[in-house]
Amino acid sequence: MTFLYKADPARGKVWARLFAERAPHLPFKIWPDVGDPEQVRYLVAWQPPDDPTRTLPNLEVLFSVGAGVDQFDLSGIAAHVPVVRMIEPGIVEGMVEYVTHAVLTIHRDFFVYAAQQQQVCWRDLPVRSASSCRVGVLGLGMLGTAVLERLRLFGYACAGWSRSEHRIEGVECYAGDSALDAFLARTDILVCLLPLTPATRQMLDARLLGKLPRGASLVQTGRGAHLVQDDLLQLLDDGHLRYALLDVTTPEPLPREHPFWRHPGIRITPHIASATRPETAVESVLDNLRRHQAGLPMIGQIDRHRGY
Amino acid sequence: MTFLYKADPARGKVWARLFAERAPHLPFKIWPDVGDPEQVRYLVAWQPPDDPTRTLPNLEVLFSVGAGVDQFDLSGIAAHVPVVRMIEPGIVEGMVEYVTHAVLTIHRDFFVYAAQQQQVCWRDLPVRSASSCRVGVLGLGMLGTAVLERLRLFGYACAGWSRSEHRIEGVECYAGDSALDAFLARTDILVCLLPLTPATRQMLDARLLGKLPRGASLVQTGRGAHLVQDDLLQLLDDGHLRYALLDVTTPEPLPREHPFWRHPGIRITPHIASATRPETAVESVLDNLRRHQAGLPMIGQIDRHRGY
Repeated sequence: MTFLYKADPARGKVWARLFAERAPHLPFKIWPDVGDPEQVRYLVAWQPPDDPTRTLPNLEVLFSVGAGVDQFDLSGIAAHVPVVRMIEPGIVEGMVEYVTHAVLTIHRDFFVYAAQQQQVCWRDLPVRSASSCRVGVLGLGMLGTAVLERLRLFGYACAGWSRSEHRIEGVECYAGDSALDAFLARTDILVCLLPLTPATRQMLDARLLGKLPRGASLVQTGRGAHLVQDDLLQLLDDGHLRYALLDVTTPEPLPREHPFWRHPGIRITPHIASATRPETAVESVLDNLRRHQAGLPMIGQIDRHRGY
Repeated sequence: MTFLYKADPARGKVWARLFAERAPHLPFKIWPDVGDPEQVRYLVAWQPPDDPTRTLPNLEVLFSVGAGVDQFDLSGIAAHVPVVRMIEPGIVEGMVEYVTHAVLTIHRDFFVYAAQQQQVCWRDLPVRSASSCRVGVLGLGMLGTAVLERLRLFGYACAGWSRSEHRIEGVECYAGDSALDAFLARTDILVCLLPLTPATRQMLDARLLGKLPRGASLVQTGRGAHLVQDDLLQLLDDGHLRYALLDVTTPEPLPREHPFWRHPGIRITPHIASATRPETAVESVLDNLRRHQAGLPMIGQIDRHRGY
């Protein structure tokens, strides 16, 4: 019975050390050193091998090493194999840090002050209270909820939108397509934390972003494929949108000639908002293995119909 | 009986409107339109008039419009006149926002990513957990305490230093000169929120900053005169310090030819971290007037011996 890891090899070494400490009975292998493929019961992967059912015939559970499973082709994974996304505190912590920083940067005009320093200009801008700054989060899963709970402490006017009904204390929750326009109309800083599914692919288009009030900004921490890139450029150039902070793009890395790099309203970070942290992720995976062996549902097990 | 305002005239109009609403019985004047100087009982000021005892012979209370009173020459203010600094939630909110943003910027390498975008470079850096990032705040008054309480929620390893003993949950508190070196030795990001007094003037010098571990950074949100500017430049150039984020300088505005503007390790903001907000400040002043009239001590009344 083997646990196979197939993702970044440098982090794989940390996983191997942690498994040796915490689950010494469970042989741990790092791809491509699979050992006997028939022994592989558990796989944690960013991308599974091609034709996993044939390659790993006795696979019992497929774990994503990331917060989403959109990088998996679920049709190629046997229906009896549960697919589990990563739910662990390290991912949440990183995302809360990134989005809090992004919202404070926009709200408190830090891009303007950085530009003023380059121009050797000392000029203060009026300070708006956080309560007059309306933040809206698309997607109310683990990450969206944690982000809103932190931003609320700063006094931001917080709202969230999701397909299904949610309740979060101090947050105005909107649900379903019919509520989307009202949610957008009251949002000055839009944060995308949606899962990537057929329903959300290309969702951030001119129609949706155009419903934001003039001067709004976008913080894109979902997946690159949520965004219609030409629509974003048009809305920034029209002045309808002020800033777009993009941590995810299509493709990644973003090619050198891509117009996003040099656009004055766009800030790029190289998909660093949040990363699975081996220390906490190994705990989460081992906990899920115990649940699986006890016949309990695993935390983060996805619904293949919804795709998340 | 008149209340006189002597500070930024644009904000003074907001103060006048709020006083008219909330204390319509109390005549409110904006300097230099003093009316009858003998009628002035209360003064809120950034800088009092020259020789205030003579100019305003019946002055009963002097309020600072700012969080500190270091801009006042206390020797020129009659000993029987209480001097009160501004304690109001708007100042705290702004400072918590500014320092949280500064700490996240340093911890999560946002300056590096901004530089990489200019170089059209997509490269992720290792993410460190907040718990491995040691933040230390000099000064544990209202602002320092509020800042630490917010940073603690992000998981930062938090400590504070003050002349006198303090207890803040989840924060390692150091007190007095003898504990200063130990506090500095464990601090990766030093935040200065000290009052400016004869004892703290020029306190941020090569001796103090040199006790920080190599690669530490400074967030300067105290007063410009806390800092020995040449010592900071030397420590940045030696590589002992990594970044200095300065919201306050000497003088302000910083002259165009000053080397801080163009230093790659320095980021300047024009004293915007936090400002008194008329809405909440007027509430605080009116509350203190009620206390004064009832013979109670006012909130923020300074100890002239300590200077804060």
